[in-house]
Amino acid sequence: MNGGDVDARARMVAGAAEMIRRRGVNATSVRELAKHTGAPLGSTYHYFPGGKSQLAAEAVRWADDRTARRLTEAMAAGPAEGLAAFLAMWREILVDSDFQAGCPVLAVAVEELADGDSAPRDAAVFAFGNWTTILAGALRTQGVSPHRATGTATLIVAAVEGAVAMSRAERTNQPLDTVGEQLRDVLATVLG
Amino acid sequence: MNGGDVDARARMVAGAAEMIRRRGVNATSVRELAKHTGAPLGSTYHYFPGGKSQLAAEAVRWADDRTARRLTEAMAAGPAEGLAAFLAMWREILVDSDFQAGCPVLAVAVEELADGDSAPRDAAVFAFGNWTTILAGALRTQGVSPHRATGTATLIVAAVEGAVAMSRAERTNQPLDTVGEQLRDVLATVLG
Repeated sequence: MNGGDVDARARMVAGAAEMIRRRGVNATSVRELAKHTGAPLGSTYHYFPGGKSQLAAEAVRWADDRTARRLTEAMAAGPAEGLAAFLAMWREILVDSDFQAGCPVLAVAVEELADGDSAPRDAAVFAFGNWTTILAGALRTQGVSPHRATGTATLIVAAVEGAVAMSRAERTNQPLDTVGEQLRDVLATVLG
Repeated sequence: MNGGDVDARARMVAGAAEMIRRRGVNATSVRELAKHTGAPLGSTYHYFPGGKSQLAAEAVRWADDRTARRLTEAMAAGPAEGLAAFLAMWREILVDSDFQAGCPVLAVAVEELADGDSAPRDAAVFAFGNWTTILAGALRTQGVSPHRATGTATLIVAAVEGAVAMSRAERTNQPLDTVGEQLRDVLATVLG
């Protein structure tokens, strides 16, 4: 692919992530995505011969990469700073979209997909596991036991995902901020 | 309405909750619901003149009622027992559906609905608030301060919702069980 093709393809993946964040996978159509990203419909099938399933899986991986990179950078300063950055990232997504957008990984996890294809769900499992591993790794460098580090990291990912959904329903940051405060306390206890 | 009508209507609401649990609101159609519950399509519009939005809102309220009743009963034995019952309820929903079904309240919270109607989302806000209030009330009877009781209850609801979604993606109880263990620790700290 030449540079323009790479750009066009990347724009479609980012556009798909944005649509899935808002309305889920089942309500996202390849036709609307093409319109949304200004791409000819034919090129969508050219870049993504696997159709919506392939596009959704790539959108999840794209969101995973961005989140993992931000989390890794933030964790370099310590687990508390990493948690603060993770929370700030989600807060920004909520506020910037006027609470219309959430997490595309969660969206894929909670929808039974029409064609029964598991590629998007596999990508979601990988993403949740990736974030948990980054968080757990940061806790282990502070001397937390492997079991406790993984448990705490899983709690953080689950609670933040749930809180983002609750904040979208409420159209306020309150649930995310409340959960953030609780997770800071949990982290303080774990880091002793 | 006579008894048969009440039954038919209730079956449709329960059927809608079941479909939304699995595939979300946007991918649930009134036509399929009628087929699924053995009701003539016309009766669906007779019982739910507000269409899918009304049906989704009632399905969320139905799930809220059942969950709130179970949570209230369990909390009578104490917060730790209540948490165990809440976790057991979700575990059962996951296992009985072979990880195809999750929470209809979360499903409504994370989808931008096509017609922009807010009734289902309002019902979701009420449900999350209801469960949080029941959990916080049980903590307060144990002497936990109002601020901390609400914070802990919000963390429990958010973390369990997130863990159910993660468990669906993974097709295992692992995330829910891990989060359950962490929440038991949090509760033990809060109840001191």
